[in-house]
Amino acid sequence: MNTFGRTYRLTTFGESHGEAIGGIIDGCPSGIELNFEQIQYELDRRKPGQSKIVTQRKESDRVKFLSGIFEGKTTGAPIGFIIPNENQKSKDYSHIKDAFRPSHADFTYQKKYGIRDYRGGGRSSARETANWVVCGAIAKQILVDMKINAYVSSVGDLFLEKPYQELDFSKTESNIVRCPDEQVAEQMIDKIGEIRKAGDTIGGTITCVIQNVPVGLGEPIFDKLHARLGQAMLSINAVKGFEYGSGFCGAKMTGSEHNDLFNEDGTTKSNLSGGIQGGISNGMDIYFRVAFKPVATIMQEQETINSKGEMVKMQGKGRHDPCVVPRAVPIVEAFAAMVLLDFVLLDKSRNF
Amino acid sequence: MNTFGRTYRLTTFGESHGEAIGGIIDGCPSGIELNFEQIQYELDRRKPGQSKIVTQRKESDRVKFLSGIFEGKTTGAPIGFIIPNENQKSKDYSHIKDAFRPSHADFTYQKKYGIRDYRGGGRSSARETANWVVCGAIAKQILVDMKINAYVSSVGDLFLEKPYQELDFSKTESNIVRCPDEQVAEQMIDKIGEIRKAGDTIGGTITCVIQNVPVGLGEPIFDKLHARLGQAMLSINAVKGFEYGSGFCGAKMTGSEHNDLFNEDGTTKSNLSGGIQGGISNGMDIYFRVAFKPVATIMQEQETINSKGEMVKMQGKGRHDPCVVPRAVPIVEAFAAMVLLDFVLLDKSRNF
Amino acid sequence: MNTFGRTYRLTTFGESHGEAIGGIIDGCPSGIELNFEQIQYELDRRKPGQSKIVTQRKESDRVKFLSGIFEGKTTGAPIGFIIPNENQKSKDYSHIKDAFRPSHADFTYQKKYGIRDYRGGGRSSARETANWVVCGAIAKQILVDMKINAYVSSVGDLFLEKPYQELDFSKTESNIVRCPDEQVAEQMIDKIGEIRKAGDTIGGTITCVIQNVPVGLGEPIFDKLHARLGQAMLSINAVKGFEYGSGFCGAKMTGSEHNDLFNEDGTTKSNLSGGIQGGISNGMDIYFRVAFKPVATIMQEQETINSKGEMVKMQGKGRHDPCVVPRAVPIVEAFAAMVLLDFVLLDKSRNF
Amino acid sequence: MNTFGRTYRLTTFGESHGEAIGGIIDGCPSGIELNFEQIQYELDRRKPGQSKIVTQRKESDRVKFLSGIFEGKTTGAPIGFIIPNENQKSKDYSHIKDAFRPSHADFTYQKKYGIRDYRGGGRSSARETANWVVCGAIAKQILVDMKINAYVSSVGDLFLEKPYQELDFSKTESNIVRCPDEQVAEQMIDKIGEIRKAGDTIGGTITCVIQNVPVGLGEPIFDKLHARLGQAMLSINAVKGFEYGSGFCGAKMTGSEHNDLFNEDGTTKSNLSGGIQGGISNGMDIYFRVAFKPVATIMQEQETINSKGEMVKMQGKGRHDPCVVPRAVPIVEAFAAMVLLDFVLLDKSRNF
Repeated sequence: MNTFGRTYRLTTFGESHGEAIGGIIDGCPSGIELNFEQIQYELDRRKPGQSKIVTQRKESDRVKFLSGIFEGKTTGAPIGFIIPNENQKSKDYSHIKDAFRPSHADFTYQKKYGIRDYRGGGRSSARETANWVVCGAIAKQILVDMKINAYVSSVGDLFLEKPYQELDFSKTESNIVRCPDEQVAEQMIDKIGEIRKAGDTIGGTITCVIQNVPVGLGEPIFDKLHARLGQAMLSINAVKGFEYGSGFCGAKMTGSEHNDLFNEDGTTKSNLSGGIQGGISNGMDIYFRVAFKPVATIMQEQETINSKGEMVKMQGKGRHDPCVVPRAVPIVEAFAAMVLLDFVLLDKSRNF
Repeated sequence: MNTFGRTYRLTTFGESHGEAIGGIIDGCPSGIELNFEQIQYELDRRKPGQSKIVTQRKESDRVKFLSGIFEGKTTGAPIGFIIPNENQKSKDYSHIKDAFRPSHADFTYQKKYGIRDYRGGGRSSARETANWVVCGAIAKQILVDMKINAYVSSVGDLFLEKPYQELDFSKTESNIVRCPDEQVAEQMIDKIGEIRKAGDTIGGTITCVIQNVPVGLGEPIFDKLHARLGQAMLSINAVKGFEYGSGFCGAKMTGSEHNDLFNEDGTTKSNLSGGIQGGISNGMDIYFRVAFKPVATIMQEQETINSKGEMVKMQGKGRHDPCVVPRAVPIVEAFAAMVLLDFVLLDKSRNF
Repeated sequence: MNTFGRTYRLTTFGESHGEAIGGIIDGCPSGIELNFEQIQYELDRRKPGQSKIVTQRKESDRVKFLSGIFEGKTTGAPIGFIIPNENQKSKDYSHIKDAFRPSHADFTYQKKYGIRDYRGGGRSSARETANWVVCGAIAKQILVDMKINAYVSSVGDLFLEKPYQELDFSKTESNIVRCPDEQVAEQMIDKIGEIRKAGDTIGGTITCVIQNVPVGLGEPIFDKLHARLGQAMLSINAVKGFEYGSGFCGAKMTGSEHNDLFNEDGTTKSNLSGGIQGGISNGMDIYFRVAFKPVATIMQEQETINSKGEMVKMQGKGRHDPCVVPRAVPIVEAFAAMVLLDFVLLDKSRNF
Repeated sequence: MNTFGRTYRLTTFGESHGEAIGGIIDGCPSGIELNFEQIQYELDRRKPGQSKIVTQRKESDRVKFLSGIFEGKTTGAPIGFIIPNENQKSKDYSHIKDAFRPSHADFTYQKKYGIRDYRGGGRSSARETANWVVCGAIAKQILVDMKINAYVSSVGDLFLEKPYQELDFSKTESNIVRCPDEQVAEQMIDKIGEIRKAGDTIGGTITCVIQNVPVGLGEPIFDKLHARLGQAMLSINAVKGFEYGSGFCGAKMTGSEHNDLFNEDGTTKSNLSGGIQGGISNGMDIYFRVAFKPVATIMQEQETINSKGEMVKMQGKGRHDPCVVPRAVPIVEAFAAMVLLDFVLLDKSRNF
């Protein structure tokens, strides 16, 4: 339950204000020469403080591998790693010790466990996602032929209308909001700037495109490829929805419009299926969209309750993200890579 | 991978044209007196041939329990069951023996396994969902206090605009499209009738509302309650999207609009969170929406390829659903019940 | 928990006096042409009534496959099967409805579940092992190169002293006790005959030898190959012990005696390791021994308690085995095959 | 596969010569006040260098908890921990870089993974067992009513013949070999001393007794309580056999001798069943015995092969245990506690 994956598996631990977070990667093939700079690069994409539109917390987020790697190569043994928590300003959180922040996990954790590490959200902190980025970064290095590109496709009601086929993914990293269309990116950046000044936050969506996927990944019934991608994305903090291929729009269409007709080589003329049919990849591009709600911590005063059920005033402190999607782009990619590698490895067991 | 659930678990088998489909339910508490009529009632809601807007295939879909029940009560042993396939018109499917139907699983199964039971879609047939209905019907009987109500909330571009709070769920079964608003229901029925006459199919959405949920269900990281609900719903044939609470709309909002402020008793004034915070139920109503694509089998001629990669003409035969959502309502409820019971049982292990 | 295996997985159901027992085999590779006579042959080796030294119950134990097989080949879909219970003389069991048989599972089931199907032991009946034989018979057909031979190595204090290397496994089936040494076999058969006449039962051991095992099967820590074999064997009804390689004798030895020195080709001069080092197969023969207690149902009068805690007299009725080991030989082989195939498939996911 | 347990779960990592080993404990109930001295006490029982009859390696084996604990209590979040490796004399191992030690895992790891961390056995090092001791020590603190006592019951051919009922477990820690009979303990200590002087090693057995076990723990088919205990014990380095209750001796007995007759209160007059019937605890003492082979590293010269298949001479270096059982006593107890707690938590999900 605290483990993700069947064959390529990640088990994690850690709270935002403990000494470190970390995880154990299990099932990683042996003999893989790891590029550690690349792993750190992915962590840097996620880390706080990287631009003016994300939280100004400063953390170096350096991962330290403790096992499973010998002379730079994976050995097939579990890869244990930790990411030290450097910036544990615990005093910042005294104001939430006895109060439940609206739309956070404070209340539900307290009720479920009868106790909670209130500092920085404890286990519910999005800091956990750094663990996933490590695991996904390794998966990416194994899936050398696949291309996994996520990008911000909306901020509030600002949408990137262009279909992904018209985008140049190499531009995603060229701006701080991680939208590959520069014009829309600028508007998004402005939008987030305004929201931030107002002490507010705003939601958005991320689209992810996976290319060069082999045919045959995914299990037919409960572990359909898109069902696992959906579970993965819905595990990311603040996610409220997931759609793939035609998604919710597909629900408005007719069969004659929606069917993807074949070309002679087995590719399809259209791809409303989103690269997956019957839960199994068909070799076409996989693409999906993930909805993120606005960050719950706002810099405006709100009323809330404390643990005695009394109304109290509360105002966000600390350094929070006005919009979570720019930093969530590498998380979406990492989790997608974990799912894909899991199915690649699982599929090998079929080939007797 | 062919099993759903951690504690209340379902493992299934069966193709649409074998002798029977069936499953094994594991982890069912002992001593539960089962209402078999109620289980059959749920199966009848799903079965073909029940109204003019669904497939005219006739199958009685009677479940036969083989174990785990003694003198009408569950014993705690695995509940094995089968549902015989009565209507296995195999000749209907000779035309797809060598051809891949567009937007079906024929192509992907063939490529993944190198062999497929092409009759009626084999393992990819939605007949499998009858197994889930059995398992969910038992879960519902154990979750006596919870209320799980699904209904059709759109067909094509016809939307039921009213929020669920204004609906009378007791009316869902009063019409054949399973929409609790009679006026909208009539429009939907007409729409499906037209689509059917055109030999076409159409998509739609189902909304599900779960009430009287205890606080504390769900696991914090990878098994968030909504992530498991999402995985479940995305496992249903033809599903393209899942959103809960504010969903994709939430991605357009600001934090100050979106936050659910507390009342003194721990309930919240609004419920954009959809009853789940940090992956754990907070006691408010859980609600989510599921998008279904139009059924891929249409009664119009389409071009497609055969196993040799040659273009061939194909026209849907047999008796297919013009719109899948009316019959999917009990499936959504069943799967939701399975997920909820799984977490209820799992949560018991916490209380030391 | 009711499923065995990671990749090649068996989930089962059934009580001895329901309509049928059965199971679902998951993860079976596709395209395997099954030899159904061979599967039935393995079931016949296990079935009651096959000789004078086993229970005289008559059951044909015919397996019926319901899915996952198309035109004689596996499709990669779950293989569902049932074995009808033909000989359900329920009246035989009225005497145990309210009494707990000594050294049976009656008492523990009643206490754990608060209810039990008392007829024939219900879920605790060794009839369940027929399900395993089906699953193992398929595994054997996939593991064409491996040779898995089990045989009776002791009955009571009669031991087959010869090491397995001196035995001709082709003779195991030539006598009804399944001991490949004809002389010892005769003594064992006589012994069981005497025990039977006395209305008593007797224990014994089975040795199993697995040859032509590839190097590299098994996981290093918790899923060591021998740990999984041990778990499997200890799951068989009446088993009290498991040892592999030098086993309990090895605990008396010194390192200088016990170490298996290498030959230049990586084979070892001795094989006290039993073909497994560090939990992973080394290519040498795997051999292990399993201890079975005497069957608890004896034809002599015993005192026991009823559900009210009153002392009552009880005498075994029905047709029970005086010694369980002859019929357990195919069960041991089947379970070993399941474990080996599971690790073979799992190992494929390593080879990136 | 690198995780043990269903509900109370341990996932581990680490090699003997990396920076640290460690693990993640999942499913630990919340609100448990931990006694850290007690956890360290258990680690000290296992650690090297504690007496003259164990390896003279010096390591302080101090565990550092990184998460899941807040103000001294468990929070229900995963408990991440590391145990730094202090004594990583890597140069000691240059002699095995290119050679395979007889009866070690060097050869099988190399063949399975194509690479290995040869220093100190890498992942196959018994250092891993320190992780289990941490997890088991926490389990023991939760299972306050159960008494879990393991002790050395044989060294070579020196056996402690007394049944466990005649032993005073409080004396186990009073001598360095951990045998609760002082006279036998002295003989064992002398024996190990001789073996050590000869540069040799010797095997032995450990018996474990678990008292005050509630009725009803264990799953009926594949997760029988003794099957899981067996899997656990067979996971410990150097273990070659497991038996519970009457064990291999039971295989020589008749049913009339072996059956455990009931007393009116549901206890049994004898306990050859070893506290488990049908895989489920019956409330009587659980007892089992575990066989350990002699440590493979001896201080005598042996012939072996290198990675090129050439014969080379090798002599054990470093500081190894002449007999592993004294240090394995806390490991057996820890693993038993993990299994028992797992079933206690699992059983809670049954009580609806």
